[in-house]
Amino acid sequence: MCRWVAYAGPALHPSTLLLDTPHSLVAQSLHSPLGQETVNGDGFGMGWYLPGKAPGKAPALFRSVEPAWYDENLRELAHAVESPLFFAHVRAASGPPIQQTNCHPFRHQNWMFMHNGVLRQFGVMKRDILLEVEPALFTSIRGTTDSEALFCLALTMGLATDPIGAMARAISEVERIGAALSVPHPVQGTFAVTDGMTIWAFRYSSEHRSRTLFYSEDLGALRQTYPDIDRLRKYGDGARVIVSEPLSDLPGAYVEVPESTVAVLEEGRYRQEPFLRDAP
Amino acid sequence: MCRWVAYAGPALHPSTLLLDTPHSLVAQSLHSPLGQETVNGDGFGMGWYLPGKAPGKAPALFRSVEPAWYDENLRELAHAVESPLFFAHVRAASGPPIQQTNCHPFRHQNWMFMHNGVLRQFGVMKRDILLEVEPALFTSIRGTTDSEALFCLALTMGLATDPIGAMARAISEVERIGAALSVPHPVQGTFAVTDGMTIWAFRYSSEHRSRTLFYSEDLGALRQTYPDIDRLRKYGDGARVIVSEPLSDLPGAYVEVPESTVAVLEEGRYRQEPFLRDAP
Amino acid sequence: MCRWVAYAGPALHPSTLLLDTPHSLVAQSLHSPLGQETVNGDGFGMGWYLPGKAPGKAPALFRSVEPAWYDENLRELAHAVESPLFFAHVRAASGPPIQQTNCHPFRHQNWMFMHNGVLRQFGVMKRDILLEVEPALFTSIRGTTDSEALFCLALTMGLATDPIGAMARAISEVERIGAALSVPHPVQGTFAVTDGMTIWAFRYSSEHRSRTLFYSEDLGALRQTYPDIDRLRKYGDGARVIVSEPLSDLPGAYVEVPESTVAVLEEGRYRQEPFLRDAP
Amino acid sequence: MCRWVAYAGPALHPSTLLLDTPHSLVAQSLHSPLGQETVNGDGFGMGWYLPGKAPGKAPALFRSVEPAWYDENLRELAHAVESPLFFAHVRAASGPPIQQTNCHPFRHQNWMFMHNGVLRQFGVMKRDILLEVEPALFTSIRGTTDSEALFCLALTMGLATDPIGAMARAISEVERIGAALSVPHPVQGTFAVTDGMTIWAFRYSSEHRSRTLFYSEDLGALRQTYPDIDRLRKYGDGARVIVSEPLSDLPGAYVEVPESTVAVLEEGRYRQEPFLRDAP
Repeated sequence: MCRWVAYAGPALHPSTLLLDTPHSLVAQSLHSPLGQETVNGDGFGMGWYLPGKAPGKAPALFRSVEPAWYDENLRELAHAVESPLFFAHVRAASGPPIQQTNCHPFRHQNWMFMHNGVLRQFGVMKRDILLEVEPALFTSIRGTTDSEALFCLALTMGLATDPIGAMARAISEVERIGAALSVPHPVQGTFAVTDGMTIWAFRYSSEHRSRTLFYSEDLGALRQTYPDIDRLRKYGDGARVIVSEPLSDLPGAYVEVPESTVAVLEEGRYRQEPFLRDAP
Repeated sequence: MCRWVAYAGPALHPSTLLLDTPHSLVAQSLHSPLGQETVNGDGFGMGWYLPGKAPGKAPALFRSVEPAWYDENLRELAHAVESPLFFAHVRAASGPPIQQTNCHPFRHQNWMFMHNGVLRQFGVMKRDILLEVEPALFTSIRGTTDSEALFCLALTMGLATDPIGAMARAISEVERIGAALSVPHPVQGTFAVTDGMTIWAFRYSSEHRSRTLFYSEDLGALRQTYPDIDRLRKYGDGARVIVSEPLSDLPGAYVEVPESTVAVLEEGRYRQEPFLRDAP
Repeated sequence: MCRWVAYAGPALHPSTLLLDTPHSLVAQSLHSPLGQETVNGDGFGMGWYLPGKAPGKAPALFRSVEPAWYDENLRELAHAVESPLFFAHVRAASGPPIQQTNCHPFRHQNWMFMHNGVLRQFGVMKRDILLEVEPALFTSIRGTTDSEALFCLALTMGLATDPIGAMARAISEVERIGAALSVPHPVQGTFAVTDGMTIWAFRYSSEHRSRTLFYSEDLGALRQTYPDIDRLRKYGDGARVIVSEPLSDLPGAYVEVPESTVAVLEEGRYRQEPFLRDAP
Repeated sequence: MCRWVAYAGPALHPSTLLLDTPHSLVAQSLHSPLGQETVNGDGFGMGWYLPGKAPGKAPALFRSVEPAWYDENLRELAHAVESPLFFAHVRAASGPPIQQTNCHPFRHQNWMFMHNGVLRQFGVMKRDILLEVEPALFTSIRGTTDSEALFCLALTMGLATDPIGAMARAISEVERIGAALSVPHPVQGTFAVTDGMTIWAFRYSSEHRSRTLFYSEDLGALRQTYPDIDRLRKYGDGARVIVSEPLSDLPGAYVEVPESTVAVLEEGRYRQEPFLRDAP
């Protein structure tokens, strides 16, 4: 129900991806070619790790309920900061209130999480999901979204030590709760997780027809293919993104992540592996 | 650049037009079939006269920069109040900041004004336009829009005693200023004005290809034509609206106001007359 | 942690109490003489029943995170609407986020609830309290405050049929949970509840030193005592308020509600009875 | 009517001054010991130059109408960015609307401006002041404050080449306009101006009883005097601030700037000179 972008590489001004490319995230907030909803005007969020910080440091967050297309602080900030790893997200609410605490990404210590999609009939499943969340995390919940609940469930199930396994266990738990409550196809979406060093992006849905997900080739290296495109010069070697839809129409720049797959971006290298392919 | 609705008739909950009809104003805020922009998410405003008040009383205003589609206060208010004459407006900003003071309608004593369209190159013309505004009104300006400037110019030129003549003089003055500054086609739009008793709606543009404008037949009387449509029962006899685009697809319900015309709604009756047809 | 006012009597513009008296609620938002906090700038809410509506109708709500002292919509609305029974509240947050869904009053069907005070160490008790809430109500929770949790607990325990008994049971349950978790003095505050006909206001704290609470004499009848005070003419006979602190310094106008007491305003008459005097 | 702080020195997290000192700017937003108003809750703004940028680069701005004491983005940002020169401001509005475009500091190219105080009867003088502003600057005005008008007047009068002279000419012009319109004591306040390298801070009022203004000693060097105060270790050598009131009660840390004086902070050194001492 949303659009997002995750970047890792040489320190970059987020404006490069959020504002200065043909289908930038802010452009997608008003008009998303591939999105389930055309308009993603129900809030914006950005989380970024500071350059030169040691592993394990918490990222900074900027979240706002103003539509991204007119948020002046977003514009200022996206030009002013630089970061080697950042998440950004525009929201099209599937129901819960539009408020800052419901804007993605969500943060826990040095971890961040964001989501495009929905836990269907979340109202029906919410209590049972939250009962599975570790009490200390339960108390830390500040918003009302399905996404934050899933993040807390994954943290409860070991996200900090085994991200892929914990996401699999959390999603399976939601599938189990949904089945018990007769919720059809409870899980839908793409999910991005990071510890500040590695990005894991999951494409999964109960019905195995998930929201789109793409990874980029090395954007810095693309300069050699497209020497005339000025904006590519802003990227350093090894710059990569994972996105809910391509930020440009440049042939060869983006590759689709397959259904039921986790994409991993680590030290400038991309790899992927199957994720919950045998789920119900 | 916006969408608006003006109602006059028996006291009505604004929700009837803002929320509970197929192409309601709030639906148009997310998707406007005829609008210049698809999305009108840059603020909402409603001004309403209280039932049973004497002529000359100022209307109440509610204005908010939240997109209309998720503004909960708008929903509450539209159901809670009743009014024999109200204006409502969703904004797609043509430039000036999104802030409450830039939301339409604008109010001066018992008068209200709203606008769909634009004064082109307003930055170029702004100073010259404002210099023509009566100093006391100049000081009362709280926003930065072209629309509020035009309202103040019309007030300066006698809106309170001769609405049609004052609008003609104000628009002609902007044409004159625009011509002197080489601004092509300075004026574009539809403009609604009321004193709380009568509504005047102008369709005019320098190039004589103006934004759309429609008036409704007697919505209460339409019940006889469409006895099976429940929502028509909410309208009393004599209920009429003037709108930037139809609120439903009901054949016969809406009639287009011609180019370069002023539409007048007074005591439940509609009439129209040419407006600035010979302008440059 | 907040200030509130509850009105019942002949239909009245809320502005009379919110804006036009010496220690009006909006004046208290910037400076509260008796408040635990001087400033109550963390949001405003008003809930009002419409005149002439049948019993059992839900009230309308206006809630905003703008500080009450500059909220222009609040000013417009407080003058535009009239109501025979309304609640209004300014918030000084004790922790949870400042967002519209955390503004009082809270509403469920035709019931409203507001609170001045705190459930201490709410983070520690929150999960256990919410587990006692009826699942359907649990899902309806949209904010993160202790107050909304207590309201839902009271609804679970029969508020709609036995308001005083249900509040006693809900508060006792929080006392029990707090004791089990070694929370000292878990409950503090004054609580206002209404079904649209009757107002119940509770003054209670675990330590039996609660926030202040006052009821007014018949404000309409006060005109005879103070024939020279113009603003008293705005009140009809039988107009009464219950407030966290007096709205004026008029001798004889306000009487303190005793500790551990429930005050009841019904059909223009005031009565009170002991409430949980023997609690731990 | 406001509180502000201007910092120059080794790159510093603004949180050090905005959040982490006894009378931090955010603490002053809720309670200002020396302020004309106790509460400064009508908006916040921060402008900062990026480290390592060449002279002449524009600063970044973050401005918000949320009261500073609960603005979470402010907290995040103040910890995330570092800057060798920044301005921050909390507002207590003297009238004009509370909106982002009215939050200080104001920016023009590489210049910033902020103000504590008021142009008295600004509504009376506004038109005459704005008529003196260069037309291109007039058009760039986005807010409605006296402060932004004065900034534009100073820019018109040569701020970029002669800051002290231009401020003297602009203020004298307001004095002249005020006298012509019988406005008593038109100018009151302290004014901070910077080009990103030097800070000029003016203490001036028509009646020669201006709002307070202080400069700090070298905060880094103060470590030797107070070896036990941990927070002083955050300041590098040469760190200095100019403030509307001291950020701590540390004896010897702050010195008052005399009446009718301009304070100048340049390359870590402080100097001052008389300013408009002979004005009417």
